[in-house]
Amino acid sequence: MRNLEVVVSPALLPYYNIKGKTIVIIDILRATSTMCVGFKTGVEKILTLATAEECKLFKASNFIIAAEKDAIKVAGFDLGNSPFEFENPLLAGKNIALATTNGTKAIKYAEENGAAQIVIGSFLNIDILCYWLCKEEEDVVLLCAGWKNKFNLEDTLFAGAVVNKIGKNFKIDCDSALSAQLLYKQNENDLENLVRKSSHAKRFKLKHLIKDDVAYCLQFNTANVLPLLKDKYFVNAIKSF
Amino acid sequence: MRNLEVVVSPALLPYYNIKGKTIVIIDILRATSTMCVGFKTGVEKILTLATAEECKLFKASNFIIAAEKDAIKVAGFDLGNSPFEFENPLLAGKNIALATTNGTKAIKYAEENGAAQIVIGSFLNIDILCYWLCKEEEDVVLLCAGWKNKFNLEDTLFAGAVVNKIGKNFKIDCDSALSAQLLYKQNENDLENLVRKSSHAKRFKLKHLIKDDVAYCLQFNTANVLPLLKDKYFVNAIKSF
Repeated sequence: MRNLEVVVSPALLPYYNIKGKTIVIIDILRATSTMCVGFKTGVEKILTLATAEECKLFKASNFIIAAEKDAIKVAGFDLGNSPFEFENPLLAGKNIALATTNGTKAIKYAEENGAAQIVIGSFLNIDILCYWLCKEEEDVVLLCAGWKNKFNLEDTLFAGAVVNKIGKNFKIDCDSALSAQLLYKQNENDLENLVRKSSHAKRFKLKHLIKDDVAYCLQFNTANVLPLLKDKYFVNAIKSF
Repeated sequence: MRNLEVVVSPALLPYYNIKGKTIVIIDILRATSTMCVGFKTGVEKILTLATAEECKLFKASNFIIAAEKDAIKVAGFDLGNSPFEFENPLLAGKNIALATTNGTKAIKYAEENGAAQIVIGSFLNIDILCYWLCKEEEDVVLLCAGWKNKFNLEDTLFAGAVVNKIGKNFKIDCDSALSAQLLYKQNENDLENLVRKSSHAKRFKLKHLIKDDVAYCLQFNTANVLPLLKDKYFVNAIKSF
């Protein structure tokens, strides 16, 4: 039976063996949710980068460039990091360079340490992700991007939702997988209230964001896409099913 | 209002500011539980060391030496790491050198990074620990020793129990504190069953331990002690109340 593990922070990755495994990158608020929305809109490929500065370099190569600082679009960029911005139909067929610090660091580490496949998970694509994970053959590591390497609630809840859906098909010998599932089951009917108590959601509130990104990112299965890393770019693998 | 945070693995400590704070070291199975039993028995002081080899050097200085490998006493040592062994009345008044890999690493890091006070927590001394934490003046960090730097269930449950008891006296802006508390509240009436599902408890089972360390380490308030680090040694601070 294949193994399923949950890693609650990218800083803990060095203590797990990820060689030959499928890694699911989870950054619910908001990078991985926003990427799913982008592919739903019809974006061709997404390049994730660690900094806004690197991102800016891709403007010359006809990329749409997206970067946020403290949850707000950086001046001079086409987009921030809000899923609402990625619904714009003008993005169809375009390539996006997206700055996402936590996510990029985790992706880079996974690539360099022999991960077999790297995919993007969010509530918006949870069912298709789970279906795909069950169809594949590798062990699975659900990697929470966290907040500045700290444990975060919304990513752990999503990992728990995945364990709850597909855990019975895997061998689970991992306390964080067990805990994440318990936490999810305890709160599945009230996710939004709980996530609003999270430190990340509180930071959004402080920034007086007009659109409600938190509620948006907690919707189930609104984006039937599977962002998969192919030659440095994420593409929507669902197209080739 | 003072801050209360939970760190789910020593490997995440570098992402928290611990300067001037009180750090509670948590290694429920079994180091911190066993230390509490030792002080209850009347041990004078306990020196924690990272390896059995370092520990052995203290035999010449008339220390009782204690070390385990894979949950079993190392050959040539006086004691392993089981709380039952620390109940021996012959230990009263003695000094113990205890090898505990995860715990020692965390303690050393906390010392080197300016922690104000370092104390030991376990279910066995939870009430006196909580009382003391509320009386002191520093911010508090509950540090789970984990298992080889991975998240572990029993340490997180204990952190959650402490948050549940004293959280209302603190400002909590920490997702792991929130999650640990939820996990504890969900399972407070069935801690033993849950901890038996943990990867650590499973390892004990594989080793066919005769005495039941898991049940022992989940008892509340059987050791009315407060192990506090003073000049490199842990002593029972409760004596001087």
